[in-house]
Amino acid sequence: MILKEIGKIKSPYKVKGEAPRQGKLSKETMILEMFPEFRDAMYGLEEGQNIVVIYWGDRADRAALRTVPPGKDREYGVFATRSPNRPNPLALNVAKIMSIDEEKLEVVGLDALDNSPLLDIKIYIPAMDSLENEKNEQES
Amino acid sequence: MILKEIGKIKSPYKVKGEAPRQGKLSKETMILEMFPEFRDAMYGLEEGQNIVVIYWGDRADRAALRTVPPGKDREYGVFATRSPNRPNPLALNVAKIMSIDEEKLEVVGLDALDNSPLLDIKIYIPAMDSLENEKNEQES
Repeated sequence: MILKEIGKIKSPYKVKGEAPRQGKLSKETMILEMFPEFRDAMYGLEEGQNIVVIYWGDRADRAALRTVPPGKDREYGVFATRSPNRPNPLALNVAKIMSIDEEKLEVVGLDALDNSPLLDIKIYIPAMDSLENEKNEQES
Repeated sequence: MILKEIGKIKSPYKVKGEAPRQGKLSKETMILEMFPEFRDAMYGLEEGQNIVVIYWGDRADRAALRTVPPGKDREYGVFATRSPNRPNPLALNVAKIMSIDEEKLEVVGLDALDNSPLLDIKIYIPAMDSLENEKNEQES
């Protein structure tokens, strides 16, 4: 299974440690530069919409199976966390479109490091993506 | 960028057309069979938790750039939709863990076809994954 890079993320976060722990904590505007052959797939996206952005965490540790999450005092398997380090570093953020043209999107809400490969964009649909679960309210 | 298959999804949906349009519409229990080398990464997951499941839509059309979504009367770029057909068919569902042992998870809430390659599991965190946006309330 080989991923296609559909674009590049231009971010003010240059190295690990500069990015916040969650995209939602970021107020920075980032640019999603779409490669020419994929631009037509942006047709219909609009300013103000929320989107799910999936990018490749190319600086992640793909060998990590356990981690101690921030604020926790014991190890968890990486699948029980939001750690960027995992076998497939598919990073997932919900972001808001601030502006759009045919080559790029300006968005807020990402935790990406600069030049991360962009993989996918989906429209965010609350009825599909959002649900209640008290057990998961605490971060891990 | 090469993906590792971390497991297989066992689903009652055998062919396209049997799966619902959204995982949330499914009441079916599916089995996430984890391959031995990745099982340790499940450590800490619990029954009743909600998880984000990313799988590979191996029967998707990766050349599709536009589509007419269900209930719409015009084309949209695939990035403005939730169509399974897109350059990187990274399918995203929020699912609930019904039971768990060291080899597998039983979950509800997936739209996967049988034998879809499993790619990633993340704990679902409402504060990260959920937000309000009236513009996105309608499906597309």
